[in-house]
Amino acid sequence: MTIVQKLAQQVLQQNTRAIARSISLIENETDSAQKESLLDALHSYCGRAVVWGITGPPGAGKSSLLDRFIGRLRRLNKTVAVIAVDPSSPFSGGAILGDRLRMQKHATDDGVFIRSMASRGHLGGVAGATADAIKVFDTAGFDFVIIETIGVGQTEIEVMELADLVLLVLVPGLGDEIQALKAGVMEIGDIFIINKKDLDGANRLKREVEYVLGLQENCTAKSTPPVCMTSATRDEGIDDTLSVITDYLEKIRGNGQLAARRKDRIEKELRHIASAKIMASAEHFLNIDSRLDSWVEDVFHKKVSPYKLLNRKIGEFLKELHWQ
Amino acid sequence: MTIVQKLAQQVLQQNTRAIARSISLIENETDSAQKESLLDALHSYCGRAVVWGITGPPGAGKSSLLDRFIGRLRRLNKTVAVIAVDPSSPFSGGAILGDRLRMQKHATDDGVFIRSMASRGHLGGVAGATADAIKVFDTAGFDFVIIETIGVGQTEIEVMELADLVLLVLVPGLGDEIQALKAGVMEIGDIFIINKKDLDGANRLKREVEYVLGLQENCTAKSTPPVCMTSATRDEGIDDTLSVITDYLEKIRGNGQLAARRKDRIEKELRHIASAKIMASAEHFLNIDSRLDSWVEDVFHKKVSPYKLLNRKIGEFLKELHWQ
Repeated sequence: MTIVQKLAQQVLQQNTRAIARSISLIENETDSAQKESLLDALHSYCGRAVVWGITGPPGAGKSSLLDRFIGRLRRLNKTVAVIAVDPSSPFSGGAILGDRLRMQKHATDDGVFIRSMASRGHLGGVAGATADAIKVFDTAGFDFVIIETIGVGQTEIEVMELADLVLLVLVPGLGDEIQALKAGVMEIGDIFIINKKDLDGANRLKREVEYVLGLQENCTAKSTPPVCMTSATRDEGIDDTLSVITDYLEKIRGNGQLAARRKDRIEKELRHIASAKIMASAEHFLNIDSRLDSWVEDVFHKKVSPYKLLNRKIGEFLKELHWQ
Repeated sequence: MTIVQKLAQQVLQQNTRAIARSISLIENETDSAQKESLLDALHSYCGRAVVWGITGPPGAGKSSLLDRFIGRLRRLNKTVAVIAVDPSSPFSGGAILGDRLRMQKHATDDGVFIRSMASRGHLGGVAGATADAIKVFDTAGFDFVIIETIGVGQTEIEVMELADLVLLVLVPGLGDEIQALKAGVMEIGDIFIINKKDLDGANRLKREVEYVLGLQENCTAKSTPPVCMTSATRDEGIDDTLSVITDYLEKIRGNGQLAARRKDRIEKELRHIASAKIMASAEHFLNIDSRLDSWVEDVFHKKVSPYKLLNRKIGEFLKELHWQ
């Protein structure tokens, strides 16, 4: 048994240190072969965990809300892994919410694992590293993996695409809330949560969200996402929201949407891996026997033009290959 | 003779409309095969023109200086093509300086062709489009092609790498001039020009530049670039600077630096084209007989893990290929 296979076995046995070591290995990607073996070893155990995404503008109360959700899930004896992602600060490792949670009561609970995710090193960026980390927690038997992002930009959207369902948290009083969201953000929410529902403007925000979602429905033929109202600090609306989440998951499990979503994710992953590997082989190709150098000489001395040369070389390459 | 070969012939005959049409074809890249044929047809005629780059912070007086240089070159009966690049504003097409020049006396001079370059469409970005445009002007027999950028960022550095020699224009009174330049900018200058030499601080700036260049020399073992003083508006220092430029060109022609530089450029171009073509073939590979779809099913149903699958497929692909 290789070291990596042993590591995978330890992850399967829910060994906390093995989990942490696996994620470090994935994140740092100093050894691509080891990383690949580890992910290969984990693959057959994945697919059981439910992956939530939670996102929304800073100040929406995502951490308090997450704290409440974790409390409820723990009461049901479910285990939860949280991946805190903040791509905007690669050096801090996006630990803002992770740190806050860590300081709370779950820190001493073995059923909760909190990890912040940095984008350093990983070829697929922070979304690629997060996708791989989900597999580690899934293999380790966590019932829920919750990925949360601070802020709502393009990278955050990519991260959210890794989730089975996305909770988009909004809050009244942050200005022109909906308008301020970037294009594509409203579309990623499967369930909307208006937190701090006791604040002025909460009901108006709910109506606005429902209005915009109604417009989207007409355009996309996707059913309108539910809009829930909560107050995380007052512990209100949490159970109702959990019911909505449970119903939603049951629905997408039943109608094949969950499987479709996971297959989309696999397709993206395969595309990404294939591109990276083919580019590496292209680089290798260009360097065999310094052929690039001799091509440069030929082009420089007008023996051949760049496209004519490369179309021939790459044409030969393509003709010979036997994709199976 | 194909339409594109005919177009190339017309470019060779210095037909202005053919030149403009060729650059539009390159820039828009709606038809990649046509673009490739055109560039193939031009290739054997290229390499005669001397390519200058001129860059520096906004307000340094690049356009007035360029106006003076063009005037001098025209008196020597040399023809000049100017490519104005402004990557920061893809929609305006970077026409700021181009427009200014167009409005001046050269607008009615057949020996001067001014073109602004937008980054739209071109796979290789604005630097790729500029590289191809240089080939058109070179084929059309322009003695000098001058590429100028507004501002000095990363893309501008890439554009400047297309030149045989780079004039970096600085001016006193823009604040902490040298410090304000981004990393890598000082390194691209082959000849430094301090314009508005009659302003306070011009001599101090010259000493500072020489000091920084002296430090660089110690680090890079590259000979220290000359620093010229000009006043474009007063028409002072222009002829001296032109002598410095001429001497510099003679030197790099003699010692092989010019050829080395052009070969570096060809290498980058070949790498870029090869990557783009191999990626396109990878995309094609993934779509043959919907194989990606069936792989997604296999991975989803745990028949195989992503890396195991792709390493096998890509392994077969690499084993079979005969790069020649």
